[in-house]
Amino acid sequence: MTTDELYPAGRLGQVRETAGAAGLDAVLLTPGPDLRYVIGYDAKQLERLTCLAIPADGEPALFVPRLELAAAQASPAGSLGLEMIPWEETEDPFALVADLLGPVATVGLSDRMWALSVLKFRDALPGARLAPAGRALRTLRISKTPAEVAALREAGAAIDRVHARVPGWLRPGLTERAVGSVITEAILAEGHATVDFVIVGSGSNAASPHHEVSDRVLAAGDVVVVDIGGTMPSGYCSDSTRTYALGEPPAEFSAYYKVLYDAQEAACAAVRPGVTAESVDAAAREPITRAGYGAAFFHRTGHGIGLEAHEDPYIVAGNTEALEPGMAFSVEPGIYPGPHGARIEDIVVCTADGAERLNHTPRELVVVA
Amino acid sequence: MTTDELYPAGRLGQVRETAGAAGLDAVLLTPGPDLRYVIGYDAKQLERLTCLAIPADGEPALFVPRLELAAAQASPAGSLGLEMIPWEETEDPFALVADLLGPVATVGLSDRMWALSVLKFRDALPGARLAPAGRALRTLRISKTPAEVAALREAGAAIDRVHARVPGWLRPGLTERAVGSVITEAILAEGHATVDFVIVGSGSNAASPHHEVSDRVLAAGDVVVVDIGGTMPSGYCSDSTRTYALGEPPAEFSAYYKVLYDAQEAACAAVRPGVTAESVDAAAREPITRAGYGAAFFHRTGHGIGLEAHEDPYIVAGNTEALEPGMAFSVEPGIYPGPHGARIEDIVVCTADGAERLNHTPRELVVVA
Repeated sequence: MTTDELYPAGRLGQVRETAGAAGLDAVLLTPGPDLRYVIGYDAKQLERLTCLAIPADGEPALFVPRLELAAAQASPAGSLGLEMIPWEETEDPFALVADLLGPVATVGLSDRMWALSVLKFRDALPGARLAPAGRALRTLRISKTPAEVAALREAGAAIDRVHARVPGWLRPGLTERAVGSVITEAILAEGHATVDFVIVGSGSNAASPHHEVSDRVLAAGDVVVVDIGGTMPSGYCSDSTRTYALGEPPAEFSAYYKVLYDAQEAACAAVRPGVTAESVDAAAREPITRAGYGAAFFHRTGHGIGLEAHEDPYIVAGNTEALEPGMAFSVEPGIYPGPHGARIEDIVVCTADGAERLNHTPRELVVVA
Repeated sequence: MTTDELYPAGRLGQVRETAGAAGLDAVLLTPGPDLRYVIGYDAKQLERLTCLAIPADGEPALFVPRLELAAAQASPAGSLGLEMIPWEETEDPFALVADLLGPVATVGLSDRMWALSVLKFRDALPGARLAPAGRALRTLRISKTPAEVAALREAGAAIDRVHARVPGWLRPGLTERAVGSVITEAILAEGHATVDFVIVGSGSNAASPHHEVSDRVLAAGDVVVVDIGGTMPSGYCSDSTRTYALGEPPAEFSAYYKVLYDAQEAACAAVRPGVTAESVDAAAREPITRAGYGAAFFHRTGHGIGLEAHEDPYIVAGNTEALEPGMAFSVEPGIYPGPHGARIEDIVVCTADGAERLNHTPRELVVVA
């Protein structure tokens, strides 16, 4: 996909319309995934304010520190015909934004805007009610365009290339940290722009889903949960988990791994337009509970993914939102009874025909000899 | 330095005292540098709320999603005797925090808290005035302890090892992006936990201070500004810039490079307790202006550094704050007349005797044969 396809010129208008329909008189976006989504500008969040102001009726403008103007113009935002307003080190950019907006009753802020900026906008816009812009933007961001799906597919292929090499790096005697370092370098070498997380959970650490890496030394007989992801130059994220065994695993592990495998299959099979997010969670949970491991699967089944590693839709009990074509999310049940554990995770996209998986390395337990 | 030295147990009490003196009834810190500074917990900012609540009178508590409890306990925060309150996926953590605080008039929020959380706290604490906590925390964070200086020294040595290898990677025919990839891997290989930025500005890109990398191909006769930094496992950051020449540079470049070298020396020599931040900026600017390049040095001279790559104190006109021992910041004048440019940057720490530089690779122009 090209940059134009990923970040189409019409999106600014869509956001304006969506925000207006949500009752927002303006939307203010600072650097982060919302800003990148709307104009393709991958700006860094810094102490100097960069802010895209989108009035519901009026022309949008991008306020940038003078120092960042060239970078903003060189980004995809530079070809949108968007007004860019550089501010000098001696100016108050919050006052400049307030001046552009004029009187406004309700202003949406990007979900990840720093408190520092939120509180300055509160003071610069004393009459306005501030609200999260995410609720309005999510209706656009939650359904991926074909170009976005292509970008996620590319990310999936990149992290698959890393997983394909992992068995070669799992050797008794190495620490989780040492394995993690090699994986970190491989995530970059296989095409990601940044590394978002590297979990290497061996032995009892495999039973701790959000463990990262430690100085624990891998030993024969360990199972190792490897959950890794990064962000591609396109801005789109990867995320995939596989569980590996260093030699033959304990018999009770093999028993519940089979349950987990079936649960992940069942959840993927449940994905289709019109079913609720929580029903996919239930499809993963049911076989695990039936086999007696319900209490050992204590997290949600998945999270949306796109320009953020975690975004809507969340695949969790209570989320009654119906799936739509283009929604992309993880399907990642886990069973953690201790003293070991396992997780299998693929990113899938909901299509008219069901789930398209974006990860393709073997989901069967990989036994490293 | 050890973790205990970097994140001493007494710091929670210091923050409480400082916040109380600043008129805050409570401080709420979500994952980010403030939270790490106070309790040593390097939590990720996620959609699930992690929040350290520090009432001015009352016991502090760390609210964590159930899933993160083990990670929080395994962090340095686990040995502080700090109460940790796990919340379940069906609970409202903002209401739990509000319940703990009780009636409060003014609440400080970590500067980088996401708007999403700021606005939820606004709704959960309807009677409270929200303020940035940074103003109170900065008085502590701005002066580094000996352990923090040791961590910054270690970071400086790590980035110096990368710069020492850069001349070997600058070859005509390579793109900035290709060189940037090699540097990215080296930043990790030399001991950083994450890469924060990699600027490889060649040819006319050398005249754009915040350029990152591009597909421009390096050519004989180019000058190349390489500005790189990362975060160490300790949490502390590195940042150093050197300018390289691929073969003999143009005569006019050599002329202003000498001016720049002298300016950077003068600014470092100006550092001592009691002088203002802006006087260090002036010391860098004066020789550059005198030589006729004043307009070509259009950014501030430096920024503080610690758990953040950019933090207080800023070395900029208008900042009349007096330097104190323990303050750490960059000294990075640049001259960008086009069609090329140059910058020299070291991190320095203010000591009783003047500046201690934390970067030691040659500041003279390195000509790559």
